[in-house]
Amino acid sequence: MFITFEGPEGSGKTTLIGKLAQYLRAQGRDVVVTREPGAGPFGSEIRRLLLESGDLPPTSELFLFLADRACHVAQIVRPALERGAIVLCDRYTDSTLAYQGYGRGFDRELLRRLNAMATKELVPTMTFLLDLPPAEGLARLTRKDRLDAETMDFHERVRAGFLTEADRAPHRFVIVDATRCAEVVFDEVALRLAQLVDED
Amino acid sequence: MFITFEGPEGSGKTTLIGKLAQYLRAQGRDVVVTREPGAGPFGSEIRRLLLESGDLPPTSELFLFLADRACHVAQIVRPALERGAIVLCDRYTDSTLAYQGYGRGFDRELLRRLNAMATKELVPTMTFLLDLPPAEGLARLTRKDRLDAETMDFHERVRAGFLTEADRAPHRFVIVDATRCAEVVFDEVALRLAQLVDED
Repeated sequence: MFITFEGPEGSGKTTLIGKLAQYLRAQGRDVVVTREPGAGPFGSEIRRLLLESGDLPPTSELFLFLADRACHVAQIVRPALERGAIVLCDRYTDSTLAYQGYGRGFDRELLRRLNAMATKELVPTMTFLLDLPPAEGLARLTRKDRLDAETMDFHERVRAGFLTEADRAPHRFVIVDATRCAEVVFDEVALRLAQLVDED
Repeated sequence: MFITFEGPEGSGKTTLIGKLAQYLRAQGRDVVVTREPGAGPFGSEIRRLLLESGDLPPTSELFLFLADRACHVAQIVRPALERGAIVLCDRYTDSTLAYQGYGRGFDRELLRRLNAMATKELVPTMTFLLDLPPAEGLARLTRKDRLDAETMDFHERVRAGFLTEADRAPHRFVIVDATRCAEVVFDEVALRLAQLVDED
């Protein structure tokens, strides 16, 4: 069971994933919490490069995300899924489509192909899209990183992109209204996850 | 004038490039010597990751090479070419085709598209392919790195791949018999380069 969480910075993904892991572990589940980019030793090097490399060309940035993803899926996600763990992952292939595709204008069909290559076609069981207006997400951030420095227009395209992707794969996506308080969001997502785990 | 040098480890590219730079500088030319992967601060981080990351999936490796290339072309090669320098580059897009395409079996049409993306279609003015049988190249190496640990069959496919690429673009490629001594190789390449510089 591979669950991904998508949405802008400031949408509360990290807090939500932490609480969900606690909740599932309390039920005796084996849970792995992970993220892209930045999991494992290789991932943390890539994350550091992405954050610290100044004015990296968008193409370099894209290929770094994909390098991280290929390693992350092969070395962390697949082994965890194979031993039966529930994997909760902060960002995955849909972030590449939203940020690099809709945001920066890279060809989306090419991005789908590169995502499939990087993941060897590992598709999430369910994806929670934490949706909120960009201004609200950005206002919640205390520390701004490179991506947050983009224009509001960029963030609006990213949001619309996430929603379009959700429309394309309604069987996999759950759109969550992330303007509500964290407890309400948690209750909704936990209920949905509990149903999914029970069906399994 | 963008000159690339291709061929296996142990074919003498580095030594040759050093001597050519000296030769061209003695004629008052502005020469930039560079390489892929590993030029500049970002490139050297990528090179370190490639050499030290243990059993990195081939897909991660490919994307790291491309991330390096995109940054290298944008930040080092293009600025040098724009100010009129002669750029001598140790490995470029053809290495990706030879090693990741012919060697590891990635789709070559996709690799051509990714190379074009990473370089924004910057094609070398001339490419010297230092050709020699893999066993001879490997025998010359003192320190073996990850790539050299591949099977002889892999290295044979890479060599054949380079030769096929040279056949596809005969206007750009010069195939150099690198089994000969370094002085003879230098004389041949220097003559060819001098002609090119004079035509310019």
